[in-house]
Amino acid sequence: MARTRSEERRAEILRAALEVIAERGYRGATLGSVAERVGLTQQGLLHYFPTKEALLVAVLEERDRWDTSGGRDREGWRLDLLDSLVEYNAMRPGIVQTFSALLGESVTDGHPAREFFTERYAHVRASMADVLRLEFGERLPGGLTPERAAPLLTAVMDGLQYQWLLDPAAVDMPSAFRDFLRLLAGPAEH
Amino acid sequence: MARTRSEERRAEILRAALEVIAERGYRGATLGSVAERVGLTQQGLLHYFPTKEALLVAVLEERDRWDTSGGRDREGWRLDLLDSLVEYNAMRPGIVQTFSALLGESVTDGHPAREFFTERYAHVRASMADVLRLEFGERLPGGLTPERAAPLLTAVMDGLQYQWLLDPAAVDMPSAFRDFLRLLAGPAEH
Repeated sequence: MARTRSEERRAEILRAALEVIAERGYRGATLGSVAERVGLTQQGLLHYFPTKEALLVAVLEERDRWDTSGGRDREGWRLDLLDSLVEYNAMRPGIVQTFSALLGESVTDGHPAREFFTERYAHVRASMADVLRLEFGERLPGGLTPERAAPLLTAVMDGLQYQWLLDPAAVDMPSAFRDFLRLLAGPAEH
Repeated sequence: MARTRSEERRAEILRAALEVIAERGYRGATLGSVAERVGLTQQGLLHYFPTKEALLVAVLEERDRWDTSGGRDREGWRLDLLDSLVEYNAMRPGIVQTFSALLGESVTDGHPAREFFTERYAHVRASMADVLRLEFGERLPGGLTPERAAPLLTAVMDGLQYQWLLDPAAVDMPSAFRDFLRLLAGPAEH
């Protein structure tokens, strides 16, 4: 199906925003700097994205789509691909910073990104439960079910990002994440 | 040692800020509303705390002092007290929201709370390693040391707060935290 001119422009803006985020981080990713990169006036950009928050939410949605299309096969996500995703995130601090800063803002009352993150978490927890069931079956260490371990897996990913963003020399994010997977795997059977 | 008038005023402002945060959350805790509660002009408040961020960081520092004075005995923190702290946090969404929102902002470049959170994490990870060593000794499940499990324990606490703040009906924070402690405890010995 051919994309309309407007859809193409929208995709172009998202790519430009991702570049600006990678180069200048969350604070540098202003509507003005993104508009400049795609050769629009700021007024022209507002036609596609009315606020900085709306633009950033769209960028994060687009990242989720890319990450999951690469990270899932016909069966859904797999734990080793999740491991690679954390490794990949450790090489793109700009977008991780944007995710983490916007997540922080989203918990405040009436924030425009609140709905996005609330729905995303519901979806991510369900996906993580599927991943865990596929990998470990119904019973995880500590007597946990996949559904009970899923919020923990999600919390570790997000929580480690804050520690890593603030002090990358002190926190090896991919290796800490693998440590958590070891806890979930439980004692080797023999 | 007697506190000076200025120290007393400062303590009074922090108590007022904590009240305002509890009632109105992160966004409602403006310098103006805190000044009003202690009977100062906003200009007068600025003498003690030059920015909203400086005031909120001072509130979080004060909370840490209270939490740790209640939560540690002569040996330092204990894991069951940490469990109670998470339970307690689930009853004070205002301050947890303030912590989580400010942590989110702090990862952006040049943010005034960046140093506070970076140092706090270094300190918290060291304390958590002590707690884990006291409770489980040198070897945790998955072959982890207390030092390797400490960032995970910290990440779970922070990460669960975001999920809980966004959707308290979907995430039982204290019970999820106890699930994580079960993972750390490993299989019952027999």
